[in-house]
Amino acid sequence: MTRRDNQRDNPKDRQKERRHFVPRDQQRSRAPEGLWLYGIHAVRAALSNPKRKVIRLVLTERSAQEIGPKLLGRVKHEIADMKGVDRLLPEGAVHQGIALQCEKLPKLDLEDLLGEPSGKRRIVVVLDQISDSHNEGAILRSAAAFGASAVVVQDRHAPPESGVLAKAASGALDTVPYVEVVNISRTLDQLGELGFWRIALAGDGEESLAQAATKGDIALVLGSEGSGIRRLVREHCDTAAFIPIDSSTESLNVSNAAAVALYELRRG
Amino acid sequence: MTRRDNQRDNPKDRQKERRHFVPRDQQRSRAPEGLWLYGIHAVRAALSNPKRKVIRLVLTERSAQEIGPKLLGRVKHEIADMKGVDRLLPEGAVHQGIALQCEKLPKLDLEDLLGEPSGKRRIVVVLDQISDSHNEGAILRSAAAFGASAVVVQDRHAPPESGVLAKAASGALDTVPYVEVVNISRTLDQLGELGFWRIALAGDGEESLAQAATKGDIALVLGSEGSGIRRLVREHCDTAAFIPIDSSTESLNVSNAAAVALYELRRG
Repeated sequence: MTRRDNQRDNPKDRQKERRHFVPRDQQRSRAPEGLWLYGIHAVRAALSNPKRKVIRLVLTERSAQEIGPKLLGRVKHEIADMKGVDRLLPEGAVHQGIALQCEKLPKLDLEDLLGEPSGKRRIVVVLDQISDSHNEGAILRSAAAFGASAVVVQDRHAPPESGVLAKAASGALDTVPYVEVVNISRTLDQLGELGFWRIALAGDGEESLAQAATKGDIALVLGSEGSGIRRLVREHCDTAAFIPIDSSTESLNVSNAAAVALYELRRG
Repeated sequence: MTRRDNQRDNPKDRQKERRHFVPRDQQRSRAPEGLWLYGIHAVRAALSNPKRKVIRLVLTERSAQEIGPKLLGRVKHEIADMKGVDRLLPEGAVHQGIALQCEKLPKLDLEDLLGEPSGKRRIVVVLDQISDSHNEGAILRSAAAFGASAVVVQDRHAPPESGVLAKAASGALDTVPYVEVVNISRTLDQLGELGFWRIALAGDGEESLAQAATKGDIALVLGSEGSGIRRLVREHCDTAAFIPIDSSTESLNVSNAAAVALYELRRG
């Protein structure tokens, strides 16, 4: 990991990034088999998303009724029993009798999708190396719930992780722009230039989040549970803020911290 | 499940409950092998809890250094490699090189542990049939972080689930009183008599949580993600309140909703 990080932070990478905002694996040929999403909410959102290229849907009679004829009309589908759906997915996937083979979403450019400042506070959530797909999915779900403009990550997930992430996101992977960037620090520089106030969420922050969130548009930066936000990333933020918690407790689960922070940012 | 629920709601059960506040499986002989907890935070909290009867600790050299000689002195322990710890636990348990065999905590009586009202708002979190141990563990962790007095559940978990729950709770299972009751509705009646304002958290609530939480002590009631709070349980609450979210999103993950709600209750 450390070696890869260093590589990403080297000047060559930065140069590459300046040319294309989201360039990674664009030249890499897409695997023809795509990826599998599962779970009612995740699949319904994918079928409802005109930007999602769908390949094949396998589902139970009951799930077909839940999805309804309109969305079913979008894709070739096959009725199967629960075991038939099981066989298509990683062991233990909680699929609720529905699996959709599809392509990854097209790459997004953060600057394009942010558009102009509006009356409503714009929020961008930036995830610094959060490795757990369940947590990342839950954060996407909260980002949708609190109307964030985008969730920015450094790494595009491998297909099996995308299934877990989409399930935990409960549809939000297809509703909140999910932007992969090469270098988080560079992205924070860009967000700063766009007028975003960049807040690193950290237990040892210098002010409470409510105190920190007095300005307009906000970039909220979250680090991994184990090691927190990397030093270099934190240095690209305007402030570090904490959520007030009991001194006996070390921290919140990262997706819970994200939800609380988004709630506070929308409340203000 | 339905049959068991009906049984619990029948008058005989209610009578039994009036005699003993937390009577379930008291007569059942405790399995001599106890249960296995794992993960640094969960095990450290268990070893630090004088009420936790510990049996045997198996851990790597590195985990032993993290735990330190003082806590290690409390229990017979054996040094092993990661695979040696693996073998003691369910497949896939993220144990961080440490596993503690111990007994369940002694039963708690809610009324005893609440004590007298104090200057600080008392919060009791009531979980109505939340079946996912990860979510329940994360809620315990947030309950600790926001200084809740207790978390009340209807069912005591089976030992393997207790391990998952304790890991997700990251130590909070040994710091926040975790109270099992026979009948949630009856417990809500008791909390009402003790002066707690009982708020059911529900997407279709009649007011926002910030509006609902104007009074002193609060019982916060959360339902399962699938089916929400049961009708009968909701009828035993003073109000139903929602967390304001974007209309395009159906709901938050239940542990995220709990964290947001606890933050709001402490903020007020």
